[in-house]
Amino acid sequence: MAHSDDKHNLRTYGWECLSTDYPYTYPMFRVRQDQVRWPDGHLAPYAYVQGTDAVWIVPITVDRQVVLIRQLRYTIADWCWEVPAGGFHDFTGTPLELAKRELAEEIGGTSDNWLYVGSFRPGVSIIDQVCHIILARDVRLDREPRREPGEIIEVHLVSVERALEMARNGEMVDGTSALALLRCEPYLQSQGRLS
Amino acid sequence: MAHSDDKHNLRTYGWECLSTDYPYTYPMFRVRQDQVRWPDGHLAPYAYVQGTDAVWIVPITVDRQVVLIRQLRYTIADWCWEVPAGGFHDFTGTPLELAKRELAEEIGGTSDNWLYVGSFRPGVSIIDQVCHIILARDVRLDREPRREPGEIIEVHLVSVERALEMARNGEMVDGTSALALLRCEPYLQSQGRLS
Repeated sequence: MAHSDDKHNLRTYGWECLSTDYPYTYPMFRVRQDQVRWPDGHLAPYAYVQGTDAVWIVPITVDRQVVLIRQLRYTIADWCWEVPAGGFHDFTGTPLELAKRELAEEIGGTSDNWLYVGSFRPGVSIIDQVCHIILARDVRLDREPRREPGEIIEVHLVSVERALEMARNGEMVDGTSALALLRCEPYLQSQGRLS
Repeated sequence: MAHSDDKHNLRTYGWECLSTDYPYTYPMFRVRQDQVRWPDGHLAPYAYVQGTDAVWIVPITVDRQVVLIRQLRYTIADWCWEVPAGGFHDFTGTPLELAKRELAEEIGGTSDNWLYVGSFRPGVSIIDQVCHIILARDVRLDREPRREPGEIIEVHLVSVERALEMARNGEMVDGTSALALLRCEPYLQSQGRLS
């Protein structure tokens, strides 16, 4: 496999990537394994997960309720509080276009009032994914969800205050959803009272 | 490989795990690939990352500064604002014991005032890792850090208010660090003024 040295700017600090391989590939992520000269001079592999980028949507209705989902997650074999989200593994448009699709598919939601809030990385020690946060205001639940096989989802409306509390106290176990909500807090407060 | 059916409680909802394999293993994570009957009846693999659990430490000095680190991360080939953290891949004690070790190793810090804040999962769609959050108060930077090869780290003291701002506005790109800080906010406020 040809080696494209996208790590060249690490050389200043003593890292050198000698070769790159992808020993495992799945639609939503792959494992990248580099043969590396570490800053102290020893040679050893450095492996991490390359995840497809994804969007997290914080949907607020016109009467200031947050639309949360409760989803059965195979990874943890349990239900999990989240906000709607989706990845670019089967989509080639912009984050906003993906957010519109996922809002419709997961909760049957539409909106004409979107705000791109920002992005974060879910865990820079082992994964290079980028997570986009998009706030959808004046959301209407006026369509039938069109969920994929394996998406077992309940839809719940809670106050802005309650959703932020769940993000902050850990009831919302999914950290990406919790951070998306907390990153939206300044925009939620600027609209008026919290609940 | 023997198949231990830890997904049995998914059967109620139509999932069935038929076999389990681990096609890639690295010290900090492995890939688990299950052969699965999905809720709509079709057979297909479901793969996800099993990451070793880890702790994120929010260190506050006696004069209410947050000790942040700026770390060169191989995964993204860039510097990244974070709080000290470490995984259980080479440690068998409790989260608090690991937090004490990492605080000492990464920033040369010690504390006698620890609080276990809670936990979260960094991304339930593709990884089953658990992240523990531990607040260390009255931190003293009175030791020499003992960093591992590859840990290229700067130590920066910022006000509580500034650290929370960085977590909330996205300057702190690492989502696990940002969420750890925001989850600690109620404890930081209850001690008095923010900065």
